[in-house]
Amino acid sequence: MVDTEALGEYEIIRIIRKHLTLMPDMPVPFGDDVSAVQLLGDGMVVLKTDMLVAATDIPKGMSLYHAARKAIVMNISDFASKGVMPTAAVVALGLPKTLANRKAIAEIAEGLNAGAREYGAYIIGGDTNETSDLIISVSLFGTAHHTVTLRSGAKAGDIAAVTGLFGKTSAGLRLLQGNCNASPKDRELLADAVLCPNARLREGLALRDLISSSMDSSDGLAWSLHELARASKVGFLIDRLPVAPEVHEFAQTNGLDNVDLVFYGGEEYELVLTVKPEKWTEAEAAVKAVGGCLIPIGKATYDREIFLEMNGLKRVIEPRGWEHFKSPA
Amino acid sequence: MVDTEALGEYEIIRIIRKHLTLMPDMPVPFGDDVSAVQLLGDGMVVLKTDMLVAATDIPKGMSLYHAARKAIVMNISDFASKGVMPTAAVVALGLPKTLANRKAIAEIAEGLNAGAREYGAYIIGGDTNETSDLIISVSLFGTAHHTVTLRSGAKAGDIAAVTGLFGKTSAGLRLLQGNCNASPKDRELLADAVLCPNARLREGLALRDLISSSMDSSDGLAWSLHELARASKVGFLIDRLPVAPEVHEFAQTNGLDNVDLVFYGGEEYELVLTVKPEKWTEAEAAVKAVGGCLIPIGKATYDREIFLEMNGLKRVIEPRGWEHFKSPA
Repeated sequence: MVDTEALGEYEIIRIIRKHLTLMPDMPVPFGDDVSAVQLLGDGMVVLKTDMLVAATDIPKGMSLYHAARKAIVMNISDFASKGVMPTAAVVALGLPKTLANRKAIAEIAEGLNAGAREYGAYIIGGDTNETSDLIISVSLFGTAHHTVTLRSGAKAGDIAAVTGLFGKTSAGLRLLQGNCNASPKDRELLADAVLCPNARLREGLALRDLISSSMDSSDGLAWSLHELARASKVGFLIDRLPVAPEVHEFAQTNGLDNVDLVFYGGEEYELVLTVKPEKWTEAEAAVKAVGGCLIPIGKATYDREIFLEMNGLKRVIEPRGWEHFKSPA
Repeated sequence: MVDTEALGEYEIIRIIRKHLTLMPDMPVPFGDDVSAVQLLGDGMVVLKTDMLVAATDIPKGMSLYHAARKAIVMNISDFASKGVMPTAAVVALGLPKTLANRKAIAEIAEGLNAGAREYGAYIIGGDTNETSDLIISVSLFGTAHHTVTLRSGAKAGDIAAVTGLFGKTSAGLRLLQGNCNASPKDRELLADAVLCPNARLREGLALRDLISSSMDSSDGLAWSLHELARASKVGFLIDRLPVAPEVHEFAQTNGLDNVDLVFYGGEEYELVLTVKPEKWTEAEAAVKAVGGCLIPIGKATYDREIFLEMNGLKRVIEPRGWEHFKSPA
């Protein structure tokens, strides 16, 4: 229970509910002790919880609306990587006293609702608490009537691929922090990658049954490759740098290394996956059919290390992850 | 990702996993992007999320083990009130740097596991973050192949009942804070009510289909009665004070009001419910059969106010909730 002079817990919940799209035919009404969703037939319940903490996850320049939306999107992204359609989310909010006001709560609720609805899910319940820092702890739920794509299925020889180009959030974050330069058009595009990230749900659903392993890239491309390698007991030889053209330009303008921006960024929600060579054409077409793209970047190897080899130069990709918004430079 | 000199996120997850009982036949292994549970047949997925925040939810004298256990129990209690068996939980942890050490994390993991296993559930996944204050955000999941008991089903004339006596946590909290006196035996019993609360899951499951409305009493008995009254559009006339004998004694010794301790406490996990008079004998027997007790305390009324009437004296029960550990006196 939020114990605040500004607004009581029940008033906070009332404001939140007003901004949410209610799921049709809820078996338990919003505001009862639990939330529920009707199920049909056998299958698997899939769950994910991921907590957004303002101090480490909300960069300068991000509104409460976009922070709340991102808290949902980062959970949706994990579902995307497993090829599972999300159904509903419950949200535990930790609100500092300074945010226990009508405007802030409405903005958070709208961001949560927007994030969920963009991907076909609903917010069906939650909990409100008083905390020193803003915390949005989302638990997402869905059902699967098929096998989910694990991290552990890659075999040597499989094609490594990604669903988009990398480096935009690394660059965008530097721009938001005022450390770097870019043209107004690039500035907007790169900042937008940080402030309004998108999960690759359509791609993940289209690729279901066509790929051998998958995860998202929320901790950076290098980290994802190392995780897939660890779980699948393989290595990777990367021979194509999936760098966005704006990032290439940004790196040159600001004297930064392309490779660092692409591999050691984070808060990017592309899928990193492997495909058997004989499934490649089908996988590529399936992603194209939903308006996405599948970019081959190399292949899985018996040798359990991870290298980038380009223009005859070979360098080790380190198991470094996302270093949060504290030390992005 | 926990960014700490003390222990890395992956080491933290490894320690946690070591202390958890693994659910048999998990369709997705622990540590992949999502967690999953196999389902059989139609039904309803039931979800609950509740966040434990150290500053407001962990009283003086409570170990990390008991704090983590409580974070689970408070979610189980909501399932108990709806008559739903919990299956599994995912846990988002917010750890301050001071707790990112082996001993603290093991204690938290053991507490989470103990809380879940006591009620037949498993911890199947989670997320770790760095926060300024310890935060344990639990999302509990279960399936129901029956209707769940809502807050809104009470009708005037229904018997109001509780699954145990009240006031122990109010008294125990005052003892833990060193403000009050009690005999060593009572001291232990009352402190234990705060440190090691139990959810009334057996009672809740036994009462399924026999009661007209139900919720737990985590925000205090007065608050629960007001919530049931609001949702069901009834009032309550309470004519029996469900006070624990130790609390009666404690109130006398310390010059406190019995009624305050019973109604305006909190962090108590009894069920507060209503039963149609014609179902009373069956409901009472069902609870007895699982080793519990069902205590009638009054009845639901057309008049939408909530009164306590004892010894010819009538007083209003206010819609005051649990005031946290900040201002218990």
